[in-house]
Amino acid sequence: MISVNYIYQAREKIKPFIVKTPLIRLQNLDEYAGCEVYAKLENMQNTKAFKLRGAMNKILSLTDEEKEAGIICSSSGNHGQAVSYASKLLGIKATIVIPETAPSFKVEAIRQHGAATEFCTVDDRFIVTKQLAEKHGYTIVPPFEDDLVMAGQGTVGLEIMDENIPFDHVLVPASGGGLIGGVSTAMKESGFKGRVIGVEPERLPRYTKSLAAGEPVQLESQKTIADALVVNRPGTLNFEVVQKHGDDFLSVSDETMLKAQKMMLMEGKILAEVSSAIGLGALLDKKLDVKEDDKVCLVVSGGNLGFEQLEMLKDIEY
Amino acid sequence: MISVNYIYQAREKIKPFIVKTPLIRLQNLDEYAGCEVYAKLENMQNTKAFKLRGAMNKILSLTDEEKEAGIICSSSGNHGQAVSYASKLLGIKATIVIPETAPSFKVEAIRQHGAATEFCTVDDRFIVTKQLAEKHGYTIVPPFEDDLVMAGQGTVGLEIMDENIPFDHVLVPASGGGLIGGVSTAMKESGFKGRVIGVEPERLPRYTKSLAAGEPVQLESQKTIADALVVNRPGTLNFEVVQKHGDDFLSVSDETMLKAQKMMLMEGKILAEVSSAIGLGALLDKKLDVKEDDKVCLVVSGGNLGFEQLEMLKDIEY
Repeated sequence: MISVNYIYQAREKIKPFIVKTPLIRLQNLDEYAGCEVYAKLENMQNTKAFKLRGAMNKILSLTDEEKEAGIICSSSGNHGQAVSYASKLLGIKATIVIPETAPSFKVEAIRQHGAATEFCTVDDRFIVTKQLAEKHGYTIVPPFEDDLVMAGQGTVGLEIMDENIPFDHVLVPASGGGLIGGVSTAMKESGFKGRVIGVEPERLPRYTKSLAAGEPVQLESQKTIADALVVNRPGTLNFEVVQKHGDDFLSVSDETMLKAQKMMLMEGKILAEVSSAIGLGALLDKKLDVKEDDKVCLVVSGGNLGFEQLEMLKDIEY
Repeated sequence: MISVNYIYQAREKIKPFIVKTPLIRLQNLDEYAGCEVYAKLENMQNTKAFKLRGAMNKILSLTDEEKEAGIICSSSGNHGQAVSYASKLLGIKATIVIPETAPSFKVEAIRQHGAATEFCTVDDRFIVTKQLAEKHGYTIVPPFEDDLVMAGQGTVGLEIMDENIPFDHVLVPASGGGLIGGVSTAMKESGFKGRVIGVEPERLPRYTKSLAAGEPVQLESQKTIADALVVNRPGTLNFEVVQKHGDDFLSVSDETMLKAQKMMLMEGKILAEVSSAIGLGALLDKKLDVKEDDKVCLVVSGGNLGFEQLEMLKDIEY
């Protein structure tokens, strides 16, 4: 299982390629959220999502032979963009296997960085990736089920700790569990006294169900507007870590996520992906018992969206 | 003429009502701007613009009799909203004289805080304000031509100094000169070694022309998309201060401001008013000679815009 020291190593390794993102107070959201709102802005990371941290840590740890042979990953968007960007930067051949649910501007961004692309269904993506990896001798850079990837994502937690703000709650958007696994390990093993809480789409409560069952449970795939949070089963490695360090999980409806995204934009002045507004959504729906002077940190995990997606917010009221 | 000590007094007075706004690094804009970009986020201020600082400093300095009689101001939007908000907070009767160029959502915001409203042409607004003030015994809270107002706006400069970042340039959106006057005084008298530069709409270069002439010059009123920067003559008090402490003025076209606004949103993930994107616009048009490692602070002066205004950005390319 990963440790905070393993995450410190990741931080040193990825430092030249990663931005220490701003953590800001967003007091204009307090009246809506019912607490003191802060945001860790991973939407301002290179490639505009936290995913570069984990991908970079994994890729930098490959042997020269592995780098020479090339890499592959499957991704609904942000991880693929991170791998594509990293591979270009490091001169490594990369292929991204993309589920057909991925929004087109994310596909374009992946191609812009120069990686090759392959398409398949959401359910087949890991199988197709494995087959191509075996056929061509590529190394797989997994989106979450990997200690190096999880440790890279955990550097977000170290940066939150650096700010020395006594947060009561840290809300982390969750899918396979790379971010919440890494962040909860980094913070809890650094002595954080508050709670680290995962937030997942109401239609895909894979952690809520798996934690209740005591083991990873596979849900049926569901459509959700949260295109970055579509995983239907916790990663096995991630589940163990989250079981140990995570405090709770909340779930949020698509409707509330859209409200939260629009509110974050119009009131908070921050443009986030709908998936990344899920933490604010949990507060809007009173899923978390907060007091007025509670300090809550929202991890805004990404900001990759096309201008046309703002159209969806037109008739949303909050 | 105002001094940095006068601005320190303003800071103490307005502290309970004002947010110390974030100053963040926006490295995703570097490649477009050609330098290291930072932003002071006054769009996250209470009432979503810096204007509350000056208005609050002025209003808190009134005598009890003046407060009892009520206040009045003319404003294209943000100053009026600040005065309306402050007057509600302090229990003072307020009237806002609004030029017909003001966008409707700003008018609504002014009304929401409870102030009475009067409409007139842009050119008549100061005359109408004066007439109503005399008739009803109201005290005028000027948008810029006032030492207390200018000192309040100058607290933005003190907060920039607090960050201890060795900026090469600080770019300040300019209209009447309240913000650039206050910020340049605060920074230069605190020992700031970099340059404080005003940025104004190409269609209304009132400071560029006035500084060249050595005295305030009145320009013909012009329409500009920068609805918060429509003043056609520098304030007399402000001009003297800017002449002493300001380093230079740049001007930017409406077209470039829109590009900058869209870029700040889609690449920087920050929602600013079009007027407040003018500093980034100056960089995009290479109006400022910057080196790659120059540190440039953009004062993002406000973020009051309605969702429907995002429509204007739909076909803008950058």
